Amino acid sequence: MYAASAIQKLLDELERLPGIGPKSAQRIAYWILNTDRTEAIRLADAIIEVKDTVHFCSRCFNYAQDDLCDICASLKRDHSLICVVSEPRDIPPIERTGAFEGVYHVLGGVISPLEGIGPDSLHITELLGRINDPAVKEVILATNPNIEGETTASYLARLLKPTGVTVSRLASGLPVGGDLEFADEVTLGRAIESRHEL
Amino acid sequence: MYAASAIQKLLDELERLPGIGPKSAQRIAYWILNTDRTEAIRLADAIIEVKDTVHFCSRCFNYAQDDLCDICASLKRDHSLICVVSEPRDIPPIERTGAFEGVYHVLGGVISPLEGIGPDSLHITELLGRINDPAVKEVILATNPNIEGETTASYLARLLKPTGVTVSRLASGLPVGGDLEFADEVTLGRAIESRHEL
Repeated sequence: MYAASAIQKLLDELERLPGIGPKSAQRIAYWILNTDRTEAIRLADAIIEVKDTVHFCSRCFNYAQDDLCDICASLKRDHSLICVVSEPRDIPPIERTGAFEGVYHVLGGVISPLEGIGPDSLHITELLGRINDPAVKEVILATNPNIEGETTASYLARLLKPTGVTVSRLASGLPVGGDLEFADEVTLGRAIESRHEL
Repeated sequence: MYAASAIQKLLDELERLPGIGPKSAQRIAYWILNTDRTEAIRLADAIIEVKDTVHFCSRCFNYAQDDLCDICASLKRDHSLICVVSEPRDIPPIERTGAFEGVYHVLGGVISPLEGIGPDSLHITELLGRINDPAVKEVILATNPNIEGETTASYLARLLKPTGVTVSRLASGLPVGGDLEFADEVTLGRAIESRHEL
């Protein structure tokens, strides 16, 4: 339908992106058509650069451009505190809180028998290797508070406890600014269980 | 905040796209990071190809890869019927209706004194040139039914009438499937004016 097959090709590629439907793809395609060449090429180059230069950190499996990611390489971070997450995408939200000074370990997924993902397919051996360092004091299990996340967290807790390292889990409860009236019973129940004295 | 500056660069570029906020940019960036290289490069190449191969049709100013766009070059289209639109993006919706067999002429904007866009900055001379061909029977003015669009349409009507060509305008009225109760008074008023006998 488009006057130029190159435009149709671009639309097809854009529509394969997450959350991009035909209408958004069209808006973006026309933006690319109208913007000057250098602007558009900057986007294309950014995509290529990411695929060519970004790989996994050899220590924590976060995305990195050098052997170690910026966080593992930083001397400002507390390397005695390891926060275990399932995917690299879980790290930016934690960083944004500014409440965590430690380092991370990315599992590369969660235990999910349904999808045939067992402990062996996650970076757990590498985590145990890092725990062997006596400098490591605490491991925070920051997998998502859903079935797979909880299963993975309790599996890791059983595995790590014997090593003598402190193992902690992110608190579940009412979202700050949330409303009791609209809280689901599981979350509210969790908030009651883990109530703390004032 | 991101472990790799290349990722931050990609996020910055993605956030400059229309309708893409930080969250969508992040979803897309992680999709690009997780997808295999060839998939991601196909997107980058599509962007580059569009900028390198797409220009304006020498006759109608729609996007084209050859001298003429596919519509102007097609022998299946009725070249005696020219539909005048303001932007190339207005053509796909008309094509989707399947109700139009003619060809197009893209003005490249609308008359807008506020933005300092006068008739001279639009492809009107080229339109008059096409009308000179006695084969052209009718010109449909398909600019948007808003102030600039109506101004441009009536300006063109005054200009084209003397040439003896039939000049028509898209009908305004209630959207099909729409609801009288919720129609704005201007649209409803237009629908009453242009009522037709049954």
